Amino acid sequence: MKILVLHGPNLNLLGRREPAVYGAQTLDEINAQLGVLAAELGVDVAFVQSNHEGALIDALHAAQGAMQGVLINPGGLTHSSVSLRDALLAVNLPFVEVHLSNVYAREPFRHTSLLRDVAVGVVLGFGADSYGMGLRGLISHLRRRVGDAGPPAG
Amino acid sequence: MKILVLHGPNLNLLGRREPAVYGAQTLDEINAQLGVLAAELGVDVAFVQSNHEGALIDALHAAQGAMQGVLINPGGLTHSSVSLRDALLAVNLPFVEVHLSNVYAREPFRHTSLLRDVAVGVVLGFGADSYGMGLRGLISHLRRRVGDAGPPAG
Amino acid sequence: MKILVLHGPNLNLLGRREPAVYGAQTLDEINAQLGVLAAELGVDVAFVQSNHEGALIDALHAAQGAMQGVLINPGGLTHSSVSLRDALLAVNLPFVEVHLSNVYAREPFRHTSLLRDVAVGVVLGFGADSYGMGLRGLISHLRRRVGDAGPPAG
Amino acid sequence: MKILVLHGPNLNLLGRREPAVYGAQTLDEINAQLGVLAAELGVDVAFVQSNHEGALIDALHAAQGAMQGVLINPGGLTHSSVSLRDALLAVNLPFVEVHLSNVYAREPFRHTSLLRDVAVGVVLGFGADSYGMGLRGLISHLRRRVGDAGPPAG
Amino acid sequence: MKILVLHGPNLNLLGRREPAVYGAQTLDEINAQLGVLAAELGVDVAFVQSNHEGALIDALHAAQGAMQGVLINPGGLTHSSVSLRDALLAVNLPFVEVHLSNVYAREPFRHTSLLRDVAVGVVLGFGADSYGMGLRGLISHLRRRVGDAGPPAG
Amino acid sequence: MKILVLHGPNLNLLGRREPAVYGAQTLDEINAQLGVLAAELGVDVAFVQSNHEGALIDALHAAQGAMQGVLINPGGLTHSSVSLRDALLAVNLPFVEVHLSNVYAREPFRHTSLLRDVAVGVVLGFGADSYGMGLRGLISHLRRRVGDAGPPAG
Amino acid sequence: MKILVLHGPNLNLLGRREPAVYGAQTLDEINAQLGVLAAELGVDVAFVQSNHEGALIDALHAAQGAMQGVLINPGGLTHSSVSLRDALLAVNLPFVEVHLSNVYAREPFRHTSLLRDVAVGVVLGFGADSYGMGLRGLISHLRRRVGDAGPPAG
Amino acid sequence: MKILVLHGPNLNLLGRREPAVYGAQTLDEINAQLGVLAAELGVDVAFVQSNHEGALIDALHAAQGAMQGVLINPGGLTHSSVSLRDALLAVNLPFVEVHLSNVYAREPFRHTSLLRDVAVGVVLGFGADSYGMGLRGLISHLRRRVGDAGPPAG
Amino acid sequence: MKILVLHGPNLNLLGRREPAVYGAQTLDEINAQLGVLAAELGVDVAFVQSNHEGALIDALHAAQGAMQGVLINPGGLTHSSVSLRDALLAVNLPFVEVHLSNVYAREPFRHTSLLRDVAVGVVLGFGADSYGMGLRGLISHLRRRVGDAGPPAG
Amino acid sequence: MKILVLHGPNLNLLGRREPAVYGAQTLDEINAQLGVLAAELGVDVAFVQSNHEGALIDALHAAQGAMQGVLINPGGLTHSSVSLRDALLAVNLPFVEVHLSNVYAREPFRHTSLLRDVAVGVVLGFGADSYGMGLRGLISHLRRRVGDAGPPAG
Amino acid sequence: MKILVLHGPNLNLLGRREPAVYGAQTLDEINAQLGVLAAELGVDVAFVQSNHEGALIDALHAAQGAMQGVLINPGGLTHSSVSLRDALLAVNLPFVEVHLSNVYAREPFRHTSLLRDVAVGVVLGFGADSYGMGLRGLISHLRRRVGDAGPPAG
Amino acid sequence: MKILVLHGPNLNLLGRREPAVYGAQTLDEINAQLGVLAAELGVDVAFVQSNHEGALIDALHAAQGAMQGVLINPGGLTHSSVSLRDALLAVNLPFVEVHLSNVYAREPFRHTSLLRDVAVGVVLGFGADSYGMGLRGLISHLRRRVGDAGPPAG
Repeated sequence: MKILVLHGPNLNLLGRREPAVYGAQTLDEINAQLGVLAAELGVDVAFVQSNHEGALIDALHAAQGAMQGVLINPGGLTHSSVSLRDALLAVNLPFVEVHLSNVYAREPFRHTSLLRDVAVGVVLGFGADSYGMGLRGLISHLRRRVGDAGPPAG
Repeated sequence: MKILVLHGPNLNLLGRREPAVYGAQTLDEINAQLGVLAAELGVDVAFVQSNHEGALIDALHAAQGAMQGVLINPGGLTHSSVSLRDALLAVNLPFVEVHLSNVYAREPFRHTSLLRDVAVGVVLGFGADSYGMGLRGLISHLRRRVGDAGPPAG
Repeated sequence: MKILVLHGPNLNLLGRREPAVYGAQTLDEINAQLGVLAAELGVDVAFVQSNHEGALIDALHAAQGAMQGVLINPGGLTHSSVSLRDALLAVNLPFVEVHLSNVYAREPFRHTSLLRDVAVGVVLGFGADSYGMGLRGLISHLRRRVGDAGPPAG
Repeated sequence: MKILVLHGPNLNLLGRREPAVYGAQTLDEINAQLGVLAAELGVDVAFVQSNHEGALIDALHAAQGAMQGVLINPGGLTHSSVSLRDALLAVNLPFVEVHLSNVYAREPFRHTSLLRDVAVGVVLGFGADSYGMGLRGLISHLRRRVGDAGPPAG
Repeated sequence: MKILVLHGPNLNLLGRREPAVYGAQTLDEINAQLGVLAAELGVDVAFVQSNHEGALIDALHAAQGAMQGVLINPGGLTHSSVSLRDALLAVNLPFVEVHLSNVYAREPFRHTSLLRDVAVGVVLGFGADSYGMGLRGLISHLRRRVGDAGPPAG
Repeated sequence: MKILVLHGPNLNLLGRREPAVYGAQTLDEINAQLGVLAAELGVDVAFVQSNHEGALIDALHAAQGAMQGVLINPGGLTHSSVSLRDALLAVNLPFVEVHLSNVYAREPFRHTSLLRDVAVGVVLGFGADSYGMGLRGLISHLRRRVGDAGPPAG
Repeated sequence: MKILVLHGPNLNLLGRREPAVYGAQTLDEINAQLGVLAAELGVDVAFVQSNHEGALIDALHAAQGAMQGVLINPGGLTHSSVSLRDALLAVNLPFVEVHLSNVYAREPFRHTSLLRDVAVGVVLGFGADSYGMGLRGLISHLRRRVGDAGPPAG
Repeated sequence: MKILVLHGPNLNLLGRREPAVYGAQTLDEINAQLGVLAAELGVDVAFVQSNHEGALIDALHAAQGAMQGVLINPGGLTHSSVSLRDALLAVNLPFVEVHLSNVYAREPFRHTSLLRDVAVGVVLGFGADSYGMGLRGLISHLRRRVGDAGPPAG
Repeated sequence: MKILVLHGPNLNLLGRREPAVYGAQTLDEINAQLGVLAAELGVDVAFVQSNHEGALIDALHAAQGAMQGVLINPGGLTHSSVSLRDALLAVNLPFVEVHLSNVYAREPFRHTSLLRDVAVGVVLGFGADSYGMGLRGLISHLRRRVGDAGPPAG
Repeated sequence: MKILVLHGPNLNLLGRREPAVYGAQTLDEINAQLGVLAAELGVDVAFVQSNHEGALIDALHAAQGAMQGVLINPGGLTHSSVSLRDALLAVNLPFVEVHLSNVYAREPFRHTSLLRDVAVGVVLGFGADSYGMGLRGLISHLRRRVGDAGPPAG
Repeated sequence: MKILVLHGPNLNLLGRREPAVYGAQTLDEINAQLGVLAAELGVDVAFVQSNHEGALIDALHAAQGAMQGVLINPGGLTHSSVSLRDALLAVNLPFVEVHLSNVYAREPFRHTSLLRDVAVGVVLGFGADSYGMGLRGLISHLRRRVGDAGPPAG
Repeated sequence: MKILVLHGPNLNLLGRREPAVYGAQTLDEINAQLGVLAAELGVDVAFVQSNHEGALIDALHAAQGAMQGVLINPGGLTHSSVSLRDALLAVNLPFVEVHLSNVYAREPFRHTSLLRDVAVGVVLGFGADSYGMGLRGLISHLRRRVGDAGPPAG
C-alpha cells in the first residue's frame, strides 16, 4: 500500500514561518517522522510539496494507479481551488485533509474548504501531529475497505 | 493524567442507529477500545454519556480540578449549545472535538460548530476511529504543555 | 399499532398560556380527545410531555421497537434542537409534526424547523384540531406502508 | 356551507405526473373522494383546476359571496404569486393551504410560500390525504367561527 | 397624445377589497375621474384591467405605435413579473408606476419592484389620487420630450 | 393650512449640479413655482433648505403646531438619517417624500429610505415636477382627513 | 422524432423589440430557419409562442406522448415560473434552455433560472443562432439515448 | 411583591470561571447582595440556578401566580432557547434580562437574544452590578403598573 | 468626579413626543431628577442636548480632561454615526449607553448600535429610569477603577 | 481565421475521469472531432491544455494577434480565476465558454463563473458536443462581425 | 492650481487621540508639512476641518469654481454620509480619499466607503504620510488632465 | 535597503491591455521610472513579474532575508489567492498593495482583497503613479521602523 503525502503552498517554509502558528519543525523533519510511522504501519509514503497549484494537480494525476490514498495539507488552496478538488475526484483516491493550525480559530475565510465534504475525514489543530493522526486514519480506512484487519486508527 | 470522555445526545444508541452513517460498534465497545488505548498511552479515562445538555454541563463542572483534558463528541449540541461552550471555557480544560461522520458531507446545519474555534483540534469522519485519534492528539497536546515528552500523536 | 404522542416544552400550560394563540383547552383535554379518536381508528396512543429536551429524547429511545409512529409537537425545540431530529432519525420511526398555531403568522424564528424535512408530513394552525388531523394522517401513512387498507386520512 | 376547492397548475396531470412524488391517483379520483367526505361532513364543494394564474384569480373573485371557504393547492404558484395572495385577501375567505408532497424535503425554492402566513392552517406531505385532512380542518374552523358545533377536525 | 392606463390583477375588486388599504372607490369611478382629468390635460386615455399577466402583455403589445405612454398599476405582478418588464421595454413606451397603498408600510415582499428602475417615475401611497398624480407626471414628461410646453405636472 | 417644504443637503446647488440627473432649474425657481401652485390650491408654504441634518431637525421641531404637513426631499439623508425619521415622527406631521431623480435607476444604496414607510406617500423621478405632484397629494390627503373636500390630487 | 419549440412571453415581438439586445430577425424568420435545419437533421418541429404562462403549460401537456423533446426559450418566465418547471418535469420530456442574449451580461435577476438545473443543457448569448445550436444539442442527446447514431451536435 | 431571580447555565461557577470576563464574586455573594437590596426596596426575592433548560422552565411555571416579576440572566440559553422565551410568555410575568459582561464586545453569536424584545428592559456589562440595577428597574416598572409610587429605579 | 450627560437628536421634545413610546416626562424633569441622584451619589453632572451630530462631538471633545465619564442617549445617531463612536474613543472616557424605549421591540434598524461594543454597559427599556440606572452603573464602574469603594450600582 | 481551443485543469484526464459526469471520450478524441468540424467550417484550430493557470494565461497572451477567437473550457478555474478573466479581456479576443456537464445540476459553487458575463455566449451540459456547438457559435459570431456571411451557427 | 484639504470629524484631536492608531502628529503639524510639499509641487492648499457634516458640505460648495481638486479624509463620515458623496459629485471636483490608518485591519464597518468608487484614487494606512502621498497623486492626475506635464506622482 | 517589486498576472501586457483602464505605459517603462525614483530615495529595487501564482510565491520566499520590503500589484490574484497572503505573512516582510485602476469603480468581485488587511497600506487608482506613491510610502514606513529619518513619504 502506497500513500501520497501532498503539501501545498508555503509549507516548504515550515519552521521558518510564523512558528507561533505553525510550530518549529521543518517540513523535512515532519516528513521523516511520517516515514517512520508509515514503516511502523506497514505502508510506503511518497512526498510532494509545491507552491504551484498545477504541480500539485500533476502529482495527483501521476498517483492514479500508483498510489492507494492521499494525505493532503492543501494550505491556502483549501479555500479557493476547485481544480484541486476536481483532481482528487478525477483520480478517485480516498484522501484525508489535514491542517497544522486550528483554522476555525483564525480568519473567517479559512473556515471554508472546497475539499472537506469529499474527504474521508479531517484532522486539524494538532500541529505536526495532525499529519501522523491523519495517516493513521487514512490507512485504517483503506484497510477496512479491503478487509485488511489492521489496528484501530487512534 | 485523567481524561473525561464526553458523549452527547443519542450516542447511547450507537450500533442501533443509522449504521450506514455511524458504524456498527456500540458505545460500550468504543469505550472499551478507548480504555485499552488510554492504558497503552499511560492515562486514565472516565466516560459520561447523556441526552441532557444540563447533565453534560454538570459532568464538565465536576471534572474541574479532577481531570486534565476532555475528549468530546457533542452530537447534535455541536450546532446549537452556547452553554456547552461556556462550560468548557468555564472549567478551562483543553478539549478535542470529535465526530464519527464527516459532518461536511451532511446537512448544512451540521457544518457549524459552537465549540471548534476554542478546541485544541478537531477530528471527524473516521467512524469510531475518530475517538482514538482524538485521544492521541489530546494527550500529545497536554504532554507538550507540561514538557512531558511522549511519542507524537499520529 | 401503537403511537407515541410527544408534547414539548410549555405545552403542559395549555389552557393557561396565551389562550388567544394556543386555545382554551388543557393538555389533558386534548389527550383525552386524541384517545377517543385513536380508539375509533383502532390504534393505541401513549402520551409524554416534558420541558426537558433530554427527557423527550429518552422517551423516543424507549419507543424504539415498542411503537410504530410518533405524533410530535416539539414546541420551542422545533427551531433549535438538532438532538431531537437525531433522536427521531436514530429510532427510525415515521413521525408527523404538528403545531397549534400558524407558526408562519408569528415571529420569523418560528418559520424554520429542524424536523419537518424528515417528517412524513406537517399539520399546523388548526389549534387543538391539529393533533387529531395529524394522527389521522400518520395512521393512514403507516397503514399504507403495511398494506393495511384503512379509510383515507382526511 | 360551500367550499371552493382550487387546484393550481399541473395538478390536472395527477396520476400521470412523477407518481413517486405525487401519487397514483388522478385529480378526478381525488375530487370524487373529497365529494364523499364533504357530503359526510354536511357541506357542498365546487372544484376548479387551471394552469392559468388569472383563471384561478377569476374563480376566487366569483366565489366571493357564493362560498364560505377555500381549500387550495396552489402548485408552483405557491412560491411566486403575490396576485393569488392578493385575491385570497381581497375576497376575504378563510382558506387552508395543502400540498401533496412534503415541500420541505424538496428544492429550497419550494420552502417558501406567499400564502401560508395568511392561511387558517397548512397540511402537507400526506399525498392525496392532505386534501381530506385540510377539508376537515377548514370546516371545523368555519363552524367554530359561527358557533356551529361540529366534531373536531382530526 | 394617447395614454394606456393598465390595471393589474385584483384591481377590478376595488371598492369591495380591503377598503382600509385600498379605499372605497370602484375601478369605474377611478377611471371616470381619470377620464375627466385627461380631457382637462388634453390627452386621450384607454383603460385595460386583467387578472391575466398574458392579457396585460398583449395589451401592451397592442399599444405599440397606437399610444405614447403607459400609466400602470401592476398590482401583485409588480414583485414577480419579469415578463411585464420585458413587455414595457419591448414596446419602448415611457411609463409611470403607481400604487394605491404605501407599499413600504406593508409586507417586505412588496418593497421590491421589477419595473421601477426603468419607469419614468413612481407615485405611491395616495389612494386613488396616485393615478391622477401619475398621469400628470407622465404627460408632463412626454411633453417635455417633444418640446410641447405644458404646465408643470404638480 | 400651512405646509413646510424641506430641502436636504446639496439641493441649494440645483441647476449647477449634475443637470443630466437633477435638471436645470434652480431651487429658487422650483420654490417660486411651488408658491404659485400652493396659492392656486389655497395653502401657505414655507421653505427651508440646509446642508446640516441638525438644522433640518430644528426646522421640523419649529413646525410643530405651526404647520399642518411637510413636503420633504431629504437628499442624501434619505438613506442614513434615523434622526430625521425620529423628528418627523416626533412632531407628528403627515409628510410626503419626494425625489427629483428615479432613485431606483441609480446606485443600490439609494434604493433604501429610512422615511418612506412612515410617509403618506412617495413621488420620485419626475424632476422638479415631483415637488408639485407631491404637494397636490399631501394637500389632498390633509383635506380628506379634515373632511375638507378639495379636488383630487392628480 | 418530433420536437416542440416553445417561445415564451414577448418573443412574438422579435425584430421589433430592442434590436441591439435581441437581433433584427422576426420570430417567423427564426422558425423558418429552424424548420430548414430540422429537416436537414431529419426531425419534425412544432412551434408555439404565447405571452400566457398557462398557455405554455397547456402546450407542454399536449406534447406528452406526441413529442420526444422540447427546445424552450422561456423569456421572462425563466426567472420566476415554478409552474413551467413543474410542467416540464410532469411531462418528462428532455429539454434544452436557450436564450438569445447573454443573460449574465444583463440585470442580476436574469442570472437565475428555475429550469436550467433540470435541463439537458443550456445555450445562450448567440442571438438567433442559440436556437439552432440548441436544436442540434437536443437531437444529439435524444439520439444517444436511443442508440440512434447521428452526427455530433456541434 | 415577590421576584424570581433566575440564573442560567454555568453561573454556579461564578468566581471560579474566567474572572477577567465575569468578575470575582461567587453566585452566593451576588445573591446575598441582591437580598439586601431587595429588603431595602421592600420586596422578596427567590433564587434559582440550574444548568438544565428544563429546570429553568419548570421554575418559571412554578412562579406563575406566586411571583410578580422575573430577573433573569439566561447565560448561554439567551441565544438559542425558544422554549425559555415561550415559558416567560406563557407565565405572563414582566421580566428584565441582565448580563454580567458586555455581550456586544464578545463573539457575534452573543449579540442576539431570543428574549430581549419581550423583556421590560435589558441591563448588561456592569458585572455583578447588572443584577442590582436590573432589580431596581424591574421593581420600578412593576410599581408604576400598579400605581405604587416608589422611588425612581436609577 | 464629573459626568457628562449627553442627549442626542429629538430628545429635547421629550414629553411632547410619542408619549406611548418615550414617556410623559420632559427632558428638564429628567435632568432635574438625575441631578438629585448625582448629588446623592456624590458626583457632579453637566447636561448637553443637541440635534446636531457635530455639536455632540464638540461637547465630547470639550469634556476631555474636564470630565471622568459620559452617560449618553445617542438617539437616532446610535445606529449610523461612526463619528460619534470615534469621538468617544478619541476622548477616551468610559461611557454608558442608555435608551428610554426597548429598542429590540421596535424597527430592525434600531437593533444595531455603533457604540455599544465599546461602552462599559448598556441600559435600555426602562423609560426615564434608564438614565438613573445607567448613572449608578457608570459611577460604580469608575469608582471600582480608582479603588474608590462606593456602594454597588444596583 | 484561427481559433484557440483552451482546456483547463484536469481535462487531460477525460475518458478516465468520472465518466458518468464527463463522458467516455478522451481529450484527443474530442480534439480530433473538433479539428474535423473546424475544417468543415473553414477555420484553423490550435489546442492547449494545462493544469497550470499561469500556462493558460501565457497561451492566451501568445494568441493575441495570432488568433481571432477562443473556445474555452476553464474547468475548475471557471469559479475562482480573476486572472483568467483578465487575460481574456487583456488580449481582447471574443470567446465562448463551454462545459461538458450541466454545472447547474451540480454543487452550488459551480453555478458561478467569473468569465461568462464577458463571453460571447455559453454552451453547457451536452458532453463533448458542447465543444462543437460552441465552435459553431463562435465562428458564426466572428463572421457576423466581419460581414463574412457564413451559415447560421446551429 | 488650488487644492482644498478637507479633514472630517475628530481629526482636530490628532496627536491627542489613540496615538497607537492615528500617530503622534497634530493636525497643525500635518497641515504645515502639506503646505511645504504643496509649495514644492507648485500648488496652493487651503485647509478645513469640521466635526459637522454640514460644514464640510458647505466648504465643498464654496470650493466650486475656486479650487481644482479636493484631498479628503472623511473620518467616520466615510462609511455613512451619502450627502458628502453628493456634495463631491455636485461640485464636480476630482478628489482623492485618504486615511491615516489601514481601515481594512479594523472593524468591518470601516471597510466600506460611500466615496471611494467616485474618487480618483485612494491612499490609506501610511499615517500622516497618506496625506502627502495623496496630494502627489491628485496633482499628478490634475496635471495629466490639462496636459500640464509634471513629474510622476510617486 | 532592498525592495522587491512584484507584478502579478497579465501585468506584462501593460500598454497593450485595455489602455482606457490601465494606461499606455508598458511594464518596462514603469519599472524604469521606479528604478529612477528608488535611486533618488536611496534604495535598491528588484522586479519580478509572473502569470504563475506559484512563481510569485517562490519569488517571495527567495526574498526572505535578502529584501526588506515588498511593493506588490497582485493583479487578479488580489481577490482569490490565500496562498499569496500566506507567503507574504510567512516571509514576514512589510508590504504595500498597489493597483493601477480604482478597483472600487469596477466589478464587485474586485472590491475584496485577501491581502489588504495585513498590508502596511494601500494605494490605488492613480495609474502607473500608484507604484511610485506606494514605494515612497513603503520606504518611509521602513525607515520609521528602524529610526532612519527620511523625508515624509508624500
